[in-house]
Amino acid sequence: MKLVIAVVQDKDSHRLSSALVKANFRATKLSSTGGFLKAGNTTFLIGVEDSRVDEVLQIIKDNGKARKQLVSPVSPLGGNAESYVPFPVEVQVGGATVFVLPIEQFQQF
Amino acid sequence: MKLVIAVVQDKDSHRLSSALVKANFRATKLSSTGGFLKAGNTTFLIGVEDSRVDEVLQIIKDNGKARKQLVSPVSPLGGNAESYVPFPVEVQVGGATVFVLPIEQFQQF
Amino acid sequence: MKLVIAVVQDKDSHRLSSALVKANFRATKLSSTGGFLKAGNTTFLIGVEDSRVDEVLQIIKDNGKARKQLVSPVSPLGGNAESYVPFPVEVQVGGATVFVLPIEQFQQF
Ligand code: NI
Ligand code: NI
Ligand code: NI
Repeated sequence: MKLVIAVVQDKDSHRLSSALVKANFRATKLSSTGGFLKAGNTTFLIGVEDSRVDEVLQIIKDNGKARKQLVSPVSPLGGNAESYVPFPVEVQVGGATVFVLPIEQFQQF
Repeated sequence: MKLVIAVVQDKDSHRLSSALVKANFRATKLSSTGGFLKAGNTTFLIGVEDSRVDEVLQIIKDNGKARKQLVSPVSPLGGNAESYVPFPVEVQVGGATVFVLPIEQFQQF
Repeated sequence: MKLVIAVVQDKDSHRLSSALVKANFRATKLSSTGGFLKAGNTTFLIGVEDSRVDEVLQIIKDNGKARKQLVSPVSPLGGNAESYVPFPVEVQVGGATVFVLPIEQFQQF
């Protein structure tokens, strides 16, 4: 048994939750801030059988990894229309930081 | 020294806090959601001497374990009185998930 | 790699955050309550290279340790002016509880 602590961006948190439930992992979620990720993020605590650690890491990667995204600039209503560049901009979103910790005992009451 | 991480239902959290204080354990509480427990829950971080791990597990069990509870259905004011069954229903409440982690260093400043 | 979990008083949390960023540590922050500290507190999760554990402990100590502070009593407007003692009172503030945990795997996606 391991304790997996994963910090992911809030925007990926619901998708990751669903993917974990679907794969029959149970996660406790805590609201967190800061860290490698600028925006609000969510800290997942997941108790995992040794044999399923790679599987849970893959799910976290699939649902929370850093990637580029094209974002359309907000239109310059009331702003300076002359300096407005109407091209989508590529930004980085997501990103997950994951710790796998040894457990001495796991109990459910 | 061990770090005990316990996730319990919000409804058991105050009772568990009091029991821990009474037994001279110090816990940090974090608000959390999801996991084995459906409703809002509380995550306790408790630094514990090796010799007292069993004692703290017993306190968590005594104050947070899953149990049946009889719940009286809400009376059907404005509802369909004909289909109303006025018997209390047995539901499961509580439940605690506990991880005991090894610590390499414990410091208080 | 270690996972350092530090619980500090809210009033020290911004100063500690800044000091960690300045030293190039990345911390995830969770809002917490209770524990050794009476008031609201903040729980930091910090992933740290083995060689930098002492350094991060020193930063936590420098920015969150318990110390005495002189607090001026609130003036007794509308209270009993005769029993009012206008001397500053020494109170304890701050205080940090720190766990250093072993990590089996550290991943960033
Ligand atoms: Ni959040
Ligand atoms: Ni809660
Ligand atoms: Ni707080």
